[in-house]
Amino acid sequence: MEALKERIVREGRGIGGGVLKVDSFLNHQIDVALTREIGCWLAARFPQARPTKILTVESSGIPLACTVGEVLGNIPVLFAKKAAPNTMIEGVYSTDVKSFTKETVSTIRISRTLLGPEDRVLIVDDILAYGESALGLTRLANSAGASVCGIGIAIDKRFQGGYDRLVEAGHRVEAAAVIRSISDDNIEFESVHV
Amino acid sequence: MEALKERIVREGRGIGGGVLKVDSFLNHQIDVALTREIGCWLAARFPQARPTKILTVESSGIPLACTVGEVLGNIPVLFAKKAAPNTMIEGVYSTDVKSFTKETVSTIRISRTLLGPEDRVLIVDDILAYGESALGLTRLANSAGASVCGIGIAIDKRFQGGYDRLVEAGHRVEAAAVIRSISDDNIEFESVHV
Repeated sequence: MEALKERIVREGRGIGGGVLKVDSFLNHQIDVALTREIGCWLAARFPQARPTKILTVESSGIPLACTVGEVLGNIPVLFAKKAAPNTMIEGVYSTDVKSFTKETVSTIRISRTLLGPEDRVLIVDDILAYGESALGLTRLANSAGASVCGIGIAIDKRFQGGYDRLVEAGHRVEAAAVIRSISDDNIEFESVHV
Repeated sequence: MEALKERIVREGRGIGGGVLKVDSFLNHQIDVALTREIGCWLAARFPQARPTKILTVESSGIPLACTVGEVLGNIPVLFAKKAAPNTMIEGVYSTDVKSFTKETVSTIRISRTLLGPEDRVLIVDDILAYGESALGLTRLANSAGASVCGIGIAIDKRFQGGYDRLVEAGHRVEAAAVIRSISDDNIEFESVHV
């Protein structure tokens, strides 16, 4: 998606270790118009998926997930939580995921009452790196007996292998921008996504 | 706002200690159409505020903040973070806030590069209880030298005193639903907000 790639070129920065800093428009400060555009683009990539829920994990995927849910017909968005509030009283499905930008392992969880075997889940997230987060979300969906009908991503850092892991696991993955490599002074995109 | 109050009556539950469980539509699963409606309602309450940034804290306030930002003219949304990712390399403003639903104290932070003295901040959040979170956000704004031009809330649990603390601190607070009391089998609204 051109608008996203242009913005990455203009404001994104490689800060070592394959980490891409895009917090001025995607995952700390949010450009709501761009997010909406990306969400519409992603929603259009899954015309046959007929999801019943959009699933993401707090926090950066939430704005994108809300747009996708809205565009696909006001489908509910469910976001997995990293902490358990005392309102989560009916039992949870949970799984552990590694974060490479925060260098931590965290448990993500969803309430058992909000996802079930009748659900078709479209996973949405802002960045795909090693695939830990998206794979964690597929495990949560599977724990509830739900099926995963697709995975939509804003920025796929293809060189980190998450895409391959998800495709090998049988998922259809669509990304608005696919990055081949990141160095200190250059961000290179896969040419297939012009 | 009638639609929100009706939904609280239908799906909200008092679960003791003044805690309101609304995770089927507001803060775990998100009804994107209702969130949009609340966001539009809140945006319309601040016609003279002319904010330059919408400020919220991860995670539940994000969808609402994005709608408010969009409706007010694609104003950037900045969400304070509870953990410091390794992309936050330029220094932060931070402050501690108590969470009564999670029974924890957490540090919330924003990048110094994303808020400054020229900014007028509209704070948006899903629930106002004791005011800890909103007051924390006003401290972050003040640390950056920014001014706070209003505070917009989906559900104000007025009986917990957050509203009074914010008003005493000089802020204008608007809430889409104002709750007077919560018991196991009854949620009572302030009649002023019919």
